[in-house]
Formats: sequence, structure tokens, C-alpha cells
Amino acid sequence: MATSWETSVTESINAVYLLFSAYLVFVMQLGFAMLCAGSVRAKNALNVMLTNVVDAVVGTVSYYLFGFAFAFGGSNPFIGTSFFALHHVPNDSYDYAYFLYQWAFAIAVAGITSGSIAERTQFSAYLVYSSLLTGFVYPVVAHWVWSSEGWLSPSAGGVGLLFGSGAIDFAGSGVVHLVGGIAGLWGAVIEGPRVGRFDAFGKPVPMRGHNATLVVLGTFLLWFGWFGFNPGSYARILVPYPDAPDQGNWTGVGRTAVTTALAGSTAGLVTLFGRRLLAGHWDALDVCNGLLGGFVAITSGCAVVEPWAAIVCGFFAAWVLIGLNTLALKLRFDDPLEAAPLHGGCGAWGLIFTGLFAKEELVVQAYESGEVGVSRPFGLLLGGGWGLLLAQVVAVVVIVGWVSLTMAPLFYVLHKLHLLRISVDEELAGLDISSHGGYAYVAHPEEHHPRFYADYTSIADGTR
Amino acid sequence: MATSWETSVTESINAVYLLFSAYLVFVMQLGFAMLCAGSVRAKNALNVMLTNVVDAVVGTVSYYLFGFAFAFGGSNPFIGTSFFALHHVPNDSYDYAYFLYQWAFAIAVAGITSGSIAERTQFSAYLVYSSLLTGFVYPVVAHWVWSSEGWLSPSAGGVGLLFGSGAIDFAGSGVVHLVGGIAGLWGAVIEGPRVGRFDAFGKPVPMRGHNATLVVLGTFLLWFGWFGFNPGSYARILVPYPDAPDQGNWTGVGRTAVTTALAGSTAGLVTLFGRRLLAGHWDALDVCNGLLGGFVAITSGCAVVEPWAAIVCGFFAAWVLIGLNTLALKLRFDDPLEAAPLHGGCGAWGLIFTGLFAKEELVVQAYESGEVGVSRPFGLLLGGGWGLLLAQVVAVVVIVGWVSLTMAPLFYVLHKLHLLRISVDEELAGLDISSHGGYAYVAHPEEHHPRFYADYTSIADGTR
Amino acid sequence: MATSWETSVTESINAVYLLFSAYLVFVMQLGFAMLCAGSVRAKNALNVMLTNVVDAVVGTVSYYLFGFAFAFGGSNPFIGTSFFALHHVPNDSYDYAYFLYQWAFAIAVAGITSGSIAERTQFSAYLVYSSLLTGFVYPVVAHWVWSSEGWLSPSAGGVGLLFGSGAIDFAGSGVVHLVGGIAGLWGAVIEGPRVGRFDAFGKPVPMRGHNATLVVLGTFLLWFGWFGFNPGSYARILVPYPDAPDQGNWTGVGRTAVTTALAGSTAGLVTLFGRRLLAGHWDALDVCNGLLGGFVAITSGCAVVEPWAAIVCGFFAAWVLIGLNTLALKLRFDDPLEAAPLHGGCGAWGLIFTGLFAKEELVVQAYESGEVGVSRPFGLLLGGGWGLLLAQVVAVVVIVGWVSLTMAPLFYVLHKLHLLRISVDEELAGLDISSHGGYAYVAHPEEHHPRFYADYTSIADGTR
Repeated sequence: MATSWETSVTESINAVYLLFSAYLVFVMQLGFAMLCAGSVRAKNALNVMLTNVVDAVVGTVSYYLFGFAFAFGGSNPFIGTSFFALHHVPNDSYDYAYFLYQWAFAIAVAGITSGSIAERTQFSAYLVYSSLLTGFVYPVVAHWVWSSEGWLSPSAGGVGLLFGSGAIDFAGSGVVHLVGGIAGLWGAVIEGPRVGRFDAFGKPVPMRGHNATLVVLGTFLLWFGWFGFNPGSYARILVPYPDAPDQGNWTGVGRTAVTTALAGSTAGLVTLFGRRLLAGHWDALDVCNGLLGGFVAITSGCAVVEPWAAIVCGFFAAWVLIGLNTLALKLRFDDPLEAAPLHGGCGAWGLIFTGLFAKEELVVQAYESGEVGVSRPFGLLLGGGWGLLLAQVVAVVVIVGWVSLTMAPLFYVLHKLHLLRISVDEELAGLDISSHGGYAYVAHPEEHHPRFYADYTSIADGTR
Repeated sequence: MATSWETSVTESINAVYLLFSAYLVFVMQLGFAMLCAGSVRAKNALNVMLTNVVDAVVGTVSYYLFGFAFAFGGSNPFIGTSFFALHHVPNDSYDYAYFLYQWAFAIAVAGITSGSIAERTQFSAYLVYSSLLTGFVYPVVAHWVWSSEGWLSPSAGGVGLLFGSGAIDFAGSGVVHLVGGIAGLWGAVIEGPRVGRFDAFGKPVPMRGHNATLVVLGTFLLWFGWFGFNPGSYARILVPYPDAPDQGNWTGVGRTAVTTALAGSTAGLVTLFGRRLLAGHWDALDVCNGLLGGFVAITSGCAVVEPWAAIVCGFFAAWVLIGLNTLALKLRFDDPLEAAPLHGGCGAWGLIFTGLFAKEELVVQAYESGEVGVSRPFGLLLGGGWGLLLAQVVAVVVIVGWVSLTMAPLFYVLHKLHLLRISVDEELAGLDISSHGGYAYVAHPEEHHPRFYADYTSIADGTR
Repeated sequence: MATSWETSVTESINAVYLLFSAYLVFVMQLGFAMLCAGSVRAKNALNVMLTNVVDAVVGTVSYYLFGFAFAFGGSNPFIGTSFFALHHVPNDSYDYAYFLYQWAFAIAVAGITSGSIAERTQFSAYLVYSSLLTGFVYPVVAHWVWSSEGWLSPSAGGVGLLFGSGAIDFAGSGVVHLVGGIAGLWGAVIEGPRVGRFDAFGKPVPMRGHNATLVVLGTFLLWFGWFGFNPGSYARILVPYPDAPDQGNWTGVGRTAVTTALAGSTAGLVTLFGRRLLAGHWDALDVCNGLLGGFVAITSGCAVVEPWAAIVCGFFAAWVLIGLNTLALKLRFDDPLEAAPLHGGCGAWGLIFTGLFAKEELVVQAYESGEVGVSRPFGLLLGGGWGLLLAQVVAVVVIVGWVSLTMAPLFYVLHKLHLLRISVDEELAGLDISSHGGYAYVAHPEEHHPRFYADYTSIADGTR
């Protein structure tokens, strides 16, 4: 029984750790905004940034009102039904820091999807799908996997775990990235490609984003934020492991940061050289997307695999991304941010990877606080049997199914009601001027014009 | 009596929490720089960023030499007179982490003001007012409200509190934002509007900032920094509340982050839809300013109100901002960053809001470490009487008065000596070329010119 | 003997402190990327950012595989030979958090060097020198100074310290900045200046970076990151000092943040006014470089000097930078980021400064956990004798020598093999278009062209 002093120490250390992790995850919203802005054409930069800002503000209010309740409320394995508007929070299980951490995850989901449908979507359609995704579709998946009551959860204390294991999606390759990616896939499929993205013969026409600096800025900010996303997902850092002297969640948190960096870097490297071979030049933007693909993939297993396995994870993540992007072009699928291949494809690979490479000791540490004598299914390739891998496959299937069943009809209805896509005229002119009152960038060339100068001098004299 | 081990644990947890909060507050300086740069015309971008950098470097040295002493030194309720140049620091009350945290606040104040007077102020005038504001005017207000000796302080242990309550300005809606906003108001009034901001009939001429991406970047960075600004203002996180098992300042810190996010998001949402109705389009920049207005407003009461009240706070903050901006245009008041309405108006609203909605339990937790049996005035609308509200009104009045009495004469004297505003020629040419030796952006178009190419080839051969 | 509970508390507090410090140091990679991008011409922005991204991904994999082993592995005073691929990590000395922290330092080194050789270097040459520098040259120096076995280390427990003292390079003015700066010096000397940097008479032709906003963004991000770099270098925050009640490493960490901010700000201020006198205008970019020079200089002694001494450090750092930059122009040395003068010159000054101003009490606290009764050499000007200063001078000499002996031949061989510098044609066209498939920025002016409009309307109808 912990003394009151010990409780205070534990709670405050964990709160510092979790709150600052939450702040880092929040930075990813900025990272997405910059990445998206840089990856679209200048005429749509304001629009795509607005969607990221609106994700944050709409998501904050809706996650407070009901998203958190759906995800972490009690009573059944499919959807939570308590803690609306933080009623009865804080309690024994959840303090405000936990809510804040989960909130930062929630607002990221819609941001992923917005990348797939950028440059051609009506802003009001954005408001509709974004609210549904953040407020309902995503929290339900989070409930399945991350709530201890969820039917896919690996944390139910050994009783009733799916295949005796539950699905391990430690920080959300599936819950966050696959959800966002599949939603984006349907949106982009139903909307069709941007005007001019494929020529009359179906060949892709390059549509470079307008600002590579913003892409690099966004990528590094996302990397920075991922140090909150993955290592922060332990939720508590002051948890000693009984059989490992001097070790505890603090060891796991550190190792998770290492696996995250290694998977992303490996994927970035493979993409750098792979694309050098395929495209003939060294492309910074490919490296950025490769990096992000590696991060997405390791997010599921980051806490339960060894560093060397993270390199394997990243290596294949790069090829998943390159392969799916090639396929997308063949199928005339247009996704300005590569969000569906990146978050969807690498997210799915991440879940499978965990089923292959999770190490038993680390699974027990992450999900049983390292309790001595506990045995659990682990990675198939490490001799852990089929239980975990099957649970991971089920997770992929049900997430893809659930998001498809909810989001595809929504996008289709919006499309049929002519509420989804903007008109061709608006698209050619750009969303910024047609929907947002002006461009993101203003050059003010007129100000050195002599006539202008003369006119305003007199005005200025009058006003001062 | 805490053991030496307990003291070490407490001090180190609190230091980690406070130092990293200070680092986040420091990020706001970058946020301001980007927000300001994006909101002005390209020809003044370098100038406005320089003012932000100079705020930081001048503020660091002057706050070390005397600002901290004026704010937190001992001896009387009006101005501190010890701890110059950190003499006798660290001591029982203040360690270096506390200084660093307060330093990050101090350098933010002048940044607020610089927004109001952007695009038309002499750089040397900037150096003068900025030094006075950061080094004297602001620290004195901080002493009144935040030093335990201050005459407006709510922390004086129950003895001698103004109206038995003292003013609650937890993280500085008044001490920081109202101070910066009122200073900016006087500067902008005395300087007059930018050349061409109003036409010959007094109708406003839009002067869009040159780069919306920077505005969004700055806004998100400010949001990120606000997680240091508000939740960090507890200064210590390892403080248990006697009557609430498992709860302590760590609960309060988390809730403060939640109220901050909710108030900002609500204000952003209200601005989004409000401006959609008023202006006819969805404007990302309006949402950004709305968000910031919500943050400014909740900053006073962030630790002592429930999350639902934060929504109320943000709702009205948006309308305060919209209303004051409308009024400003009518009065031909030109403030390129809307700093006076935003930081001044929403800052004042924040102080009043706290007087209406502060919850007794939370006031006791924030200012008496949750001591059992203590009773204090709290929000009028929650039945807490007039004591707190009156103290808040007094705070608004004396802050507005003090800043006006010190800063308005300064700006007026500078104006009369022709040291405040640049010439019309310089203004039309832009500050960057007239004062800083060149523009912020260089296109280098000449480099593809064939003649240039030929010339330089020979030179290059020679130099290598 | 610490109880298991005390160990858990200590480990988790230290891990939170060290991990979040590591994340901040990582942000410096982004800071460098933005600083470099803004400081070069638009035609090379993509190239210079790619080098920063590649530093991170190559550095992560190589530092994991062997860099950490060379730096912190055991067995001899010159180079480590254990812990390859984190074999036997975690152990009694090093947990993952420590690796992560050191990793963030390692990837910064090559970034410094890339600034010196920007705008004219082949990308494959970059890959070669960057791997060698991060994977071998830098880790060896880190082993000498920072590993407890290193021959220059000040931490060897009082036995066998060089001159009874060892060199104090707390956070790496020498180990990181001098190493990166000297490598850059050789690269830039061997490559020669950019085409057109000096005219036929040897007079410098200004080559302004294309985007001052990015320079300011990068500078502030570096400042933010430096709060991880310097205060984080204690590695552990929960270390009480026996003879100072209530004080411990938490006091030192806070003071280190203060000395860092003061040295940078002072150097920034001196540069602001110094350059105002020399150049005749207020230049934001000079202030930025001055700031960074102050940070580089204080990095060696940040933990062992009083705040007032940090002001002295920054004052002279500014003049070192101004002086070396003036000298560089005279010698027709072209370094687009001023990296050699800044990181090399101010880094060397930082080591010497520490030998002059280190305070005994703080040296004992930083290197002996404040043990009572221990006496060590300290700053010459404070009466601490010659031991420390001589060790510092030796550190400067051997670092310059080691880096010169390894990197100069490498650059020379690459140069002779025509693998170092790009052709004049490529240089005039810009690296982005010649090596990376396109420019960083795309204007898309064609999209408002009527004919284009007509063509694509029909295509769009077909594809949807």
C-alpha cells in the first residue's frame, strides 16, 4: 500500500511525463499543417491550413463533449457511455492529463484524412466529415483497442483476450493512422483526382507542392511530436519491473524513443537510395515521406520490439510506401499528401510487423508491468505462436471495415448532394481566393509605383 | 518536516516541471515573431522580426539586472528592491528555475506591444520603449499581483488581502496581456495609422499580411507555448491537496491545460462561424486571432474555473475581439496585429470573467494548497460574493491606469521629438530597405541571365 | 543504500528530464535546417535542407551501429570498443535515455559542417564526409572528453586527470562545435569560395540568403534546443549537494539555463550595436549569428560559471565572431553560414573562457556531485591556478589537430577525384534543379492562363 507521500510523488512524476508528451503530440498538428501547406499548390495553402486549424478547434470541443466518453467511458466492449463533458473526471482511472493526452491524438486523425482530399474539397464538407471522424468513428476504434473494456484490448488482465492475446497497437498505427488513411482513401476515391493530375491518356502530370521548406519543417515537427506520440503512450513512467533491477517503464520509454527514431531513419534512408535508383535524383521530399512512413509503421510495436527489429520495420515500410504510391498512379488515384498509402499502408504493415517481431519480455513489461511468471503470445517469428499475429490481422480487417462502412457512405452522400467537391472553376482559381477571401501570400508590388506613392502621401499627411 | 531525500525529490520534480514550462513559454517569442512577420507586408518583415529578437536579448539582460528584482524582490507592496543581478538567488523562496520562468514571461510583454506599432516605428524608439516596458513598467505590475508582498496579491496568507480576496490573475491576462495591449494602444494612437490604411473618406483599405503560412505557424507555436504559460504558472507540481485523495497540483496543472485548450478552441470556433456570417467567407486568419483571444482571456482564471466555464470564457472572448476590432475600424485606429483589442480587450475580459466564474474549491487549491476549512471569496455567479469581482475590477483599472500614465507620456515625448515614427518615404519604401539594409526575401532572378553567367564563369575559374 | 522505491523514483525523474532534454536537442536539427535554408540562395534551398534531413537519418543508424560504441564503450582512453548496436545496453551506466541524448548531439555535428560548404558541394561527397564525421571523428573526441575513461575527461574520480584537472567541456563547445567548425573550415578552404562570391579584385560580393524569416525561425529553434543541449548535459537532475541545503543538480540545471540565455543575449546585443556602428544599419541576421556565437561559447562552461561571467563570455564571443568574419573576407574564405568562425572560433573561445572563469564550488558540484572537502583546479582569474586552463588549451589543440588530420585529407582526396565540388554550370543553375529534380518553391503562374484553363476543363470532365 503506497503512502500518501508515495502517491503524490508517483502522480506528479507521471503527470509531468504525460503532460509534456501531450504537448509534443499537439505539435504534430502544426507539423501536419506545415507539411500539408507545403505539399499543395500556393493557391490552396490557406485552405489546407485552415482545415488543420479547424481540426484542432472542432476536435477540442467535440472530444471534450463526447469523444473521450465514447473512447474511454465504461460499460461495454464496443463504445463507452460515461465521462461526457468530463463528468466524473478526475477519478481513480483518469486524471485531466490523460484526457489531454488522448485529445492530442484525436485531433490528429482528421488531419491525416484532410491530406488525401486536399485542393478540391468544399470546406463545409470538411466540417461534416471531420466532426464525424473525430467525434465518433475514431473514438469507437480507440475504445476497442485502448480501453481496458475493449474487445480488441491486450490489457484486460488475461481474461477474455482475443486469441488469448488481444491486438497490440501501442501508440496507434491502426487506431490513429490506419483510421485516418482509410477515411482519406474513400474520400479521394469518391472525389476523384484533381483537375489536371492525369492527362487525357491517364498518365500522371506532376503537381509539385509550392514550398519544400514547409515540407521539411513539417516533417521535423512531426518527428519531434512522435517522441510524445510513441514514448508517451506508456501513460505512466514510474512503474518498476519486478525482475529487472533498476529497470522500469523509464527504460521502456527510452527504448521506444530509440525504436521510433531507428524505424523512421531506416525508412528514410531506404527511400533516399531507392528513389535515387528509380527517379534518378536525390529527393528531399521522398526522404521526408519515407521517414514518416517508418514512424507510422513502428507506432504499433514501438514498445514491444528490440531496436534491431525497428530497422526491419522501417526497411519494409519504405517499400510498402514506394509500392503503394506506384500502384496509386497506375490506378489514377490522386492523394496530394500520399496520406492513404502512407498512413493506411504503413499503418497496416505496422500492425502485422508487431505480430511478427514482438518480444515476450517486452510485451509483459508493456502490458503487465513486467509481472514475473506471466506468459503471453508474442511475435510469430520469435516463436510466440499465432495468437498475437491473428489478433493483429483481425485488427487490420475490422478497422478497415469499420471506417469503410461509416466514412464511405458519408462521402458518397455528400458527393451525390454536390456538397463534397468544389466546381472546376473554383478548383482552377484555387480554394483560397474562391472560399477564403484571398491568397496566402501577398507580394504588394504596387507599393513602389510612383502614382500610388503620390496619392498616399497626401492621404498620410491628412491622417496624421 | 520533510527529510532531505523528500526535499531532493520534491525540488527536482518541481524543477523539471518548471524549467520545461519555461522553455515552452520561450517558444512564444518565436510564435510572436512568426505571427508578426506573416501579418505585416513583406517590406517590413525583417524589421518586425528584429524587434522580436531584440525583445529577447534586451529583455534577458535587463530582466537579469533589475526586472526580476523589481518584480519579486522584497520590502514593500509596490516595487521590489532586492535580488538585482540575481544577488542572493538561489534562496529559500526562489531558485534559478523560477527566475527563468519569469524571464520568459517578461520578454513576451514587449512583443505584444510591437504588434500594435508595427510597420511605421523607428527602431531606436523601439529600443527605448521596449527597455522601459520590460525593465520597469511590467515588473511593477508583476510585483503587485504575483509577489506575495504585492498589494493586489491573492497569496498573502489571508491577511491584508484586498477586499479579503486579492486579484486572481493566475497566469497574466492582466499582468502580461493587458499591460502589453494598453502600451500598444497608446503607441498606435499616438503614431496614427499606417500610410494608406484609411482612404480619404476614412474607410479602411485592406492591408493584408504577406504570408498566411507564417501566421498559422505562429498561432500554433503560441498555442504550444501557452501550455507552458498557463499550466506552468503553478510553479510547483508536487503539492498534494489534503482533502482530495490522489489529487494535488498535478490535477490542477492538467485541468489548466484543458481549460486553456477549451477556451481558445471555443473562441476560434465562434470566430470562424461569426466571421463567416459577417464577412461571407471562411477565414483562417480570423480563426487564428479568435483562438489567441480565447487563450488571452482564460489566462487569468485558467486554474480556478471548471472546463465548462472555459467554454463560456472563450465564447465571449470571441465577441469582445470582433466588437473591438469593428470599433477600431470606425475610430480609424490601426493596429496591424490587432494586439490592443486582442491582448488588451480579451485580457480585461479575462480578469472580469474570473471574478464571475471562479470556483471556491479551486481557488483554495490554487492559492492555499487545498487547505481544509479555508474559505475565500470566489466567483460572483457561483455565489462567492463581490470581494473577488471587485478586486478584479480594481486590477483592470489600476493596470490600465499605470500603463497609461507611464507609456503614453513616453510615446508622446518620442513623437514630439520626431523619434517615434519613420518618414512617409521610408514607410512607403518599407522599413527593411530603409533601416535594415535589405529585404527579408531575395529572389536572385539575375542568376539565370546569360551575360551574368558568362561573366562569372571566368571569375570562378580565376578564384579556384 | 537506496531502496528499490528510491531507485525507481530517481530513475524515472532523471529519465523524464533527460528524454525531454534529448527531444529539445533534436529540435536543433530542425533549427539548423531552417537557418541553412534561409541563409542560402533559393536555388539551393532544397539541397541544404536535404543535407540536414540526411544527417539525421544517416546519423541515427550509424550512431546506433557504432558511433555510441566508439564514444562511450569501455576499455581504453582513446576509443570505445563495446556497446555496438546497443549490445549490453541498458546496463548499470547507460540506459536508453542516455543513448538518445547522445544521439541527438551526434547528428548535430555534421549539420554544422554542412553550413560551411553549402551551395557548391556534391551530394555524394556530403554522404561520405558526413558518415565519417558522425560515425568516427566526432565519437572519438566525445570519448576523450565525456567518457569517464577518456584521457581528457574531468570525471575520472581524481586519479589520472590531465594536469590534475581534465578539460571541462560541459556540453560541447569543443566536442561538438569546434569539431564541426574545423571540419567545415577545411571543406570550405579546399573547395574554394562560391562562384561570384569575390570579384576579380578579390572584393567580396554580397550573396544574401533568400529568406530572412527562415533564419529567424532557425535561430529561435536553436535557442529552444540549446535549453536541452546545455542544461540537459547534467544527465541526472536528482542529485543533492551535501553541503548546500535544498540545492542539487536541479539548481545547477536552472543556473545553466540562465547562463546560456545570458551569454547568447549579451553576444546578440553586442553584435547588434557593434554591427550598427560598423555597417550603418540594424541587421536582424547579424543579431541572430551573434546570439548563436554566444551560445556556442558558453556551452563549455555553462555549468561551472556564475551568471555574471556568462555576460563576459558573450561579450567577447561577439567580437571573436566579428573579428573572424572580417578576417575571413580578407582571406577570401567563403563560408555561407559563417559556421567555421561561429562554431570553430566561438567554440575555442568557450573552452579558454572556462579555464579563466570556472568557479571551484560549481566545478565540484558538476563533477563531484558537490562532495564536501574536495578541491580541484578552477578558473585562473578566480585564483584556481593553471591546471584547468592548460587542460583547456590542450583540448583546443588536440581537437583542432585530430579533426584536421582526419577531415582535411578526406576533403582533399574527394577534391582530387572531382567528387567534392559541383561544376560551375550546376552551381550557376543551382543544386536543386541539377541534383534534386526541381526547385524548393513553385509559383504555378500558368494556372490562370485561359488556354490552360480550357484544356483542363475538358480533361477534368473526362476523369470525374
